[in-house]
Amino acid sequence: MAKKSTISISVIKRLPRYHRYLGDMLKSGTRRISSRELAHIMSLTASQIRQDLNCFGGFGQQGYGYNVEYLYNEISNILGIPNRLPAVLIGAGNLGKAIARQMDFGNTGFQLIGVFDQSPDIVGKEVSGLTVKEMSELDKICKEKQPKVAILCIPKEATPAVADKCIELGIMGFWNFTQYDLAQGYDNIAVENVHLSDSLMTLCYQVNDLMKDGEE
Amino acid sequence: MAKKSTISISVIKRLPRYHRYLGDMLKSGTRRISSRELAHIMSLTASQIRQDLNCFGGFGQQGYGYNVEYLYNEISNILGIPNRLPAVLIGAGNLGKAIARQMDFGNTGFQLIGVFDQSPDIVGKEVSGLTVKEMSELDKICKEKQPKVAILCIPKEATPAVADKCIELGIMGFWNFTQYDLAQGYDNIAVENVHLSDSLMTLCYQVNDLMKDGEE
Repeated sequence: MAKKSTISISVIKRLPRYHRYLGDMLKSGTRRISSRELAHIMSLTASQIRQDLNCFGGFGQQGYGYNVEYLYNEISNILGIPNRLPAVLIGAGNLGKAIARQMDFGNTGFQLIGVFDQSPDIVGKEVSGLTVKEMSELDKICKEKQPKVAILCIPKEATPAVADKCIELGIMGFWNFTQYDLAQGYDNIAVENVHLSDSLMTLCYQVNDLMKDGEE
Repeated sequence: MAKKSTISISVIKRLPRYHRYLGDMLKSGTRRISSRELAHIMSLTASQIRQDLNCFGGFGQQGYGYNVEYLYNEISNILGIPNRLPAVLIGAGNLGKAIARQMDFGNTGFQLIGVFDQSPDIVGKEVSGLTVKEMSELDKICKEKQPKVAILCIPKEATPAVADKCIELGIMGFWNFTQYDLAQGYDNIAVENVHLSDSLMTLCYQVNDLMKDGEE
């Protein structure tokens, strides 16, 4: 099993990508793959792959390659996917609803157990088989079902207070779609900020830069 | 102005965050800020901020700090936001629709000029003031309005062919929400992959890791 804290976040961040590629291979019936072939498909070097996987104790046999199914399952285990941690969605507007409907939570390590919103127009509606509840019911659900993660699709201004509340109720991680940088100021809380605007602006720079190129 | 190619992608990727914080300061009436104060708010070091902004020629005055509005506008210009490049959305399912409705394209450098889908159930519907068109009309719109960016919210399997088609029609950048890694195999095309599943799995690892900690 993974040893706590010895693995750098950059290695961790590459694991889902291995998981994705290995999942595709499994589906297409590939049973065994060399680090060289895997490297080629993933645009990495074979030595990077060996290094990454060695962080978790290897899994390959010299000259024989990786067993795709075994490696896929091991990476699932390292990521903690089989634990299917309970998660709640807070904010069921356009983006929240789309996230709830689009994501395959089971295959990414979670089980969506509650959806909350403060708008009377949204409360009571159904999203992904769950009835949207009022924010005031968050306490009760957290006590009963102990969700570990909150998916935040709420306005920026509301974020710090909602995050504080969640932490008080035992939430240990945020999948944060708000424009607020949640990582700041919290210890021992995991945060994945998905700043869509930042990503789009980065693309804006890059495309404008390519266009300048064309003009030269 | 930005000098082509001399600026590292890691600096570029930080610019939207500066833009976001400076935008908030502008709104709240802050007119001037020292690199030390800005560093504190953004959880960076003052020297990192000076280094980043020096890539573009400075903007600050020793002992006087930055003019917030000037810096905000300069960063907007560097990112190319005022150019409002025309963009199309391909795939108007749950996520595509939510992205179209949620994003403030004008303030992130784009203008959404067309929405396309191949499903008869979706074609003809309205999304963000635009009527969803059939994929077969993409050619015509690209010739007429020359969009530079395509936002892809389509199934993984469809992605390579759609991307090839877009490039043929003059698209220079992709905001890619599919599970396909678009960056591979294209030269002189800008790509921002938003792999939501990868992000969620990274969070899964981190939360499970924190929980192990609690058990020790």
